[in-house]
Amino acid sequence: MRNPQLTSDGKLKHLLTIDGLPRNILNQILDTAESFVGVAEREVKKVPLLRGKTVCNIFFENSTRTRTTFEIAAKRLSADVINLNVNTSSQAKGETIMDTIDNLTAMHADMFVIRHAQSGAAHFIAQHVEPHIHVINAGDGRHAHPTQGLLDVFTVRRYKPDMHNLRVAIIGDVLHSRVARSEIHALTTLGVPEVRVIAPKTLLPAHVEKLGVHVYHDMKEGLKDVDVIMMLRLQNERMNGALLPSAQEYFKCFGLTQEKLAYAKPDAIVMHPGPMNRGVEIDSAVADGSQSVILPQVTYGIAVRMAVMSILAGNS
Amino acid sequence: MRNPQLTSDGKLKHLLTIDGLPRNILNQILDTAESFVGVAEREVKKVPLLRGKTVCNIFFENSTRTRTTFEIAAKRLSADVINLNVNTSSQAKGETIMDTIDNLTAMHADMFVIRHAQSGAAHFIAQHVEPHIHVINAGDGRHAHPTQGLLDVFTVRRYKPDMHNLRVAIIGDVLHSRVARSEIHALTTLGVPEVRVIAPKTLLPAHVEKLGVHVYHDMKEGLKDVDVIMMLRLQNERMNGALLPSAQEYFKCFGLTQEKLAYAKPDAIVMHPGPMNRGVEIDSAVADGSQSVILPQVTYGIAVRMAVMSILAGNS
Amino acid sequence: MRNPQLTSDGKLKHLLTIDGLPRNILNQILDTAESFVGVAEREVKKVPLLRGKTVCNIFFENSTRTRTTFEIAAKRLSADVINLNVNTSSQAKGETIMDTIDNLTAMHADMFVIRHAQSGAAHFIAQHVEPHIHVINAGDGRHAHPTQGLLDVFTVRRYKPDMHNLRVAIIGDVLHSRVARSEIHALTTLGVPEVRVIAPKTLLPAHVEKLGVHVYHDMKEGLKDVDVIMMLRLQNERMNGALLPSAQEYFKCFGLTQEKLAYAKPDAIVMHPGPMNRGVEIDSAVADGSQSVILPQVTYGIAVRMAVMSILAGNS
Repeated sequence: MRNPQLTSDGKLKHLLTIDGLPRNILNQILDTAESFVGVAEREVKKVPLLRGKTVCNIFFENSTRTRTTFEIAAKRLSADVINLNVNTSSQAKGETIMDTIDNLTAMHADMFVIRHAQSGAAHFIAQHVEPHIHVINAGDGRHAHPTQGLLDVFTVRRYKPDMHNLRVAIIGDVLHSRVARSEIHALTTLGVPEVRVIAPKTLLPAHVEKLGVHVYHDMKEGLKDVDVIMMLRLQNERMNGALLPSAQEYFKCFGLTQEKLAYAKPDAIVMHPGPMNRGVEIDSAVADGSQSVILPQVTYGIAVRMAVMSILAGNS
Repeated sequence: MRNPQLTSDGKLKHLLTIDGLPRNILNQILDTAESFVGVAEREVKKVPLLRGKTVCNIFFENSTRTRTTFEIAAKRLSADVINLNVNTSSQAKGETIMDTIDNLTAMHADMFVIRHAQSGAAHFIAQHVEPHIHVINAGDGRHAHPTQGLLDVFTVRRYKPDMHNLRVAIIGDVLHSRVARSEIHALTTLGVPEVRVIAPKTLLPAHVEKLGVHVYHDMKEGLKDVDVIMMLRLQNERMNGALLPSAQEYFKCFGLTQEKLAYAKPDAIVMHPGPMNRGVEIDSAVADGSQSVILPQVTYGIAVRMAVMSILAGNS
Repeated sequence: MRNPQLTSDGKLKHLLTIDGLPRNILNQILDTAESFVGVAEREVKKVPLLRGKTVCNIFFENSTRTRTTFEIAAKRLSADVINLNVNTSSQAKGETIMDTIDNLTAMHADMFVIRHAQSGAAHFIAQHVEPHIHVINAGDGRHAHPTQGLLDVFTVRRYKPDMHNLRVAIIGDVLHSRVARSEIHALTTLGVPEVRVIAPKTLLPAHVEKLGVHVYHDMKEGLKDVDVIMMLRLQNERMNGALLPSAQEYFKCFGLTQEKLAYAKPDAIVMHPGPMNRGVEIDSAVADGSQSVILPQVTYGIAVRMAVMSILAGNS
């Protein structure tokens, strides 16, 4: 089957998942993002690459945080941005998702940024849109959140450029994370030789080893000699259920503290996709500490999203 | 009484209803819209006609769909767009509508796009605003939704340019439709010799014949030799009431299927203002079929709204 | 303690409160605002002073009215504007305010317009942000709403330029008003020799005289020979409580009618920060009468906010 995110001549048409994205495309995005890091530091933070284009942020579930990053990225590229919260909209009037999408297409929108609670929603939409439309997955169910994965590897590459000699640990709720899969795929594709996951068994998917990762259930062992620590967010709803005894218990075993951080290499960097549960999966001393690159991740997130949007727009 | 939407020298000042709009103004809007159809197909979909103007989308009832069309149109004209959902706003603090309007006027807004559940709201506002403000009715109660009516006749004219030789059928809930009246007025004004309405008696206003239409209660008879079919949306709330037995029953009698479509001329076009209730007033096979011009309607809707806004701005 | 809203060399860094703002800064804002009054009357109401800057309207409590004024002001300065209603956002996911702020900072936002129900929220945020960020307080609890105070004194200065010879009366719920304190500070700083407050005892803060005002509990006495009347909004929630017997009773004693207005100087001007409770604190005949400058206040509000934003941006 042809890769649904590539054109027939192998260019990026949609960004749906990092899974299956060729290494040359990954590198094109990361290299393009480098050029946008500087734009954000200019007096006038704006380039005309998407002038006269219409970018629609179509959010079937609310996420002000994610919507804001795409809105800022699109506006810095000079696009016209339309925000749509579809749950409060014509869905209530019985219109199907595809009718909504078809209507926006007919209005000559150029790009759809899709957030949906159901896995595969962005894929489904990408399969149905007209050829001139580009779809970006901004998070679908547990499945993928590729720009988060991209900004994570961009951050890794910035701080640890020699990716062929890295040990990376991903810690926490891999089972429900739409970020972990994207990260694992991107790191592996870019040549990181050792990716570990550290989590209780109840928060790991079955057969997680098949993704090419090493599994640990103990922080001391898992963090040993690690260069990069990627924390995952623990959703509050997991803490009341059968999967975890309590937030306190989780913090004791898997929460990243200065003490546990000491198991890693002294120059290891700490990452988190946000929003953080301070005192649950990460201690504030670490989150705000000298090894944290959590805020640079956010900065690079804008550059990466500008890169994706400008590459897609250039492949029309 | 002077026409409240025209200036003293007969130019368009507000767009409140198609009812009473002179044929020359109607043609001016449609001809201007022709020039904007091309803008949406350009690389840079933007013209500077409303640069430095402030367009306020003042929505007293929520309609993401309609708001989006006006927002896209205004942004393609380079206007600054301010979206206001007034139900969640100072109305709750006891401010009157007119205080809200006066405040926005004092902020030197240029254009108000008004959506309100009550008939006459846009007229009322237009009567009270300062001379430099232009009001566009984006739907008020059952009364009017003139840009929808305009885009409908624009679509008819594009597909069936010889309007003096057309038979048009409007099908469905004429009684509660804010679109049907606008359409009937526009078609009649532009010289369409025969407009029919097809609906159960419970969904027709009393004395509907006075609008100059022929009334049918049977699809086979009503669709015979028709060139244009305009479907109306059936609101869900009608289906639980005394007006209709059930959605299934309605679909059987008045839902447009391929079978019923065959009663019309072979080259008849099918229109729908959206959002569609597939399987209630229209079958998916027809909605997505070769005679459907439902998505072109949406495309032309942007051009028509750009035309209305640019004409109003030019008449200041 | 150094003034938290000034840079080390005495320039405006944040606008948090009028309290403690030096007279030269106050005058700089008012003089700059004069130049922006003209912009709103131009054909193209736009200047490029904030082009490529990102202004975030971060509203922890909803206020479409206030948000609109800042959004219009920022867009007329050519800024990119991002609206965030944070109550519906990541706060619900357990993210702290400061994480939200840090994230937006990392996205290279330039200016935060903060609205929060708690007193001191904008101060707190200003203390923690990176040096390149400017914070504008758009209302925090009962504490301050400085742009409202500034537009009020701007309006006074426009209508009554000889401020050293004025008598000003502020009438109503001083106790709960975030506007009254700002106004008193601004008027006093600009040399107004006599500021009065008129209110029932239950709506005055303890020791209000220490702000340098004269206290009256009777409209006839308080309004005598006054040049400027500043009405305060009576919040509906006060009227059900122990503080006031009823809205009718309040209107009878303290509501501004034409009859009571006659106690003031014949050329006295009437102001109100909006939204008005017509028939509670002010009669419609006065609100819409010849001495009312309530709508000019709104107009000047845009100019004042443009002035504040452009001064802050110039002090980076």
